[in-house]
Amino acid sequence: MAEPRWLSPQEQRAWRAHLAAHRLLTHRLDRDLQEHGLSFNDYEILVNLSESPERRMRMSDLAEATIQSRSRLSHQISRMETAGLVVRENCEDDRRGTFAVLTEQGWDTIQRVAPEHVAGVRRNLIDLLSPEQVAAMEEIYRPVIALLQGK
Amino acid sequence: MAEPRWLSPQEQRAWRAHLAAHRLLTHRLDRDLQEHGLSFNDYEILVNLSESPERRMRMSDLAEATIQSRSRLSHQISRMETAGLVVRENCEDDRRGTFAVLTEQGWDTIQRVAPEHVAGVRRNLIDLLSPEQVAAMEEIYRPVIALLQGK
Repeated sequence: MAEPRWLSPQEQRAWRAHLAAHRLLTHRLDRDLQEHGLSFNDYEILVNLSESPERRMRMSDLAEATIQSRSRLSHQISRMETAGLVVRENCEDDRRGTFAVLTEQGWDTIQRVAPEHVAGVRRNLIDLLSPEQVAAMEEIYRPVIALLQGK
Repeated sequence: MAEPRWLSPQEQRAWRAHLAAHRLLTHRLDRDLQEHGLSFNDYEILVNLSESPERRMRMSDLAEATIQSRSRLSHQISRMETAGLVVRENCEDDRRGTFAVLTEQGWDTIQRVAPEHVAGVRRNLIDLLSPEQVAAMEEIYRPVIALLQGK
């Protein structure tokens, strides 16, 4: 192996800032959501389903949208089913498998929780940034996502 | 509650890009580290200890440096102790508690794994960015960290 190209001090600061900010942010958002009996992962699933036609998604599409394995998503959906937020439905004339469907209770929950959650995202991230920084953030991650999703 | 200030499309794209890139990146880095029997969390702990004087840190400082709860860190350190990477040591004349100390095996492991890990961080993030974007990333997260760490 060739001599490693270590990160420069600036590169290291940037990478560590990303990691630290991500962890602090998701801990805070998670803690705020816990008051409503939700985790950050629960919230993301509710958002995805609430934005989908008929408030339902194939499990495989939902796993891809939330970037997690099918098995991990399956456990998560089981917990959310117990909490009454979603139900699983099998589609008889579609062999591509199971759907996750938002319940009325799930819909009511996301309607009630979303304003506070968005306020938290604003207060702890978006409103701390200039419009140029918000645009820069998207640009920074676009090639990362394209590379790692193989798109 | 006042009318929610929803995220604009640009703000929503930036926030979702952050989340997606973080998950894709850490999954990839985690997978690469698994070939060496490490998780991404293990790696971070090894790095922190290897950079500390006498390759040791107080558990409370290590929890703060890696932004996780004491109880979660304690479980993690137990697993790493079993793997021979670290040991716990109590300091008799210091009531502030237990230290985590890197073993020789832990030191050898980080030396062996670091070049490949850094190459992965470069390939999947840093080398995709201009120097200006790297600097922008640090600037973007600085106020987030300051706010959430209460500093």
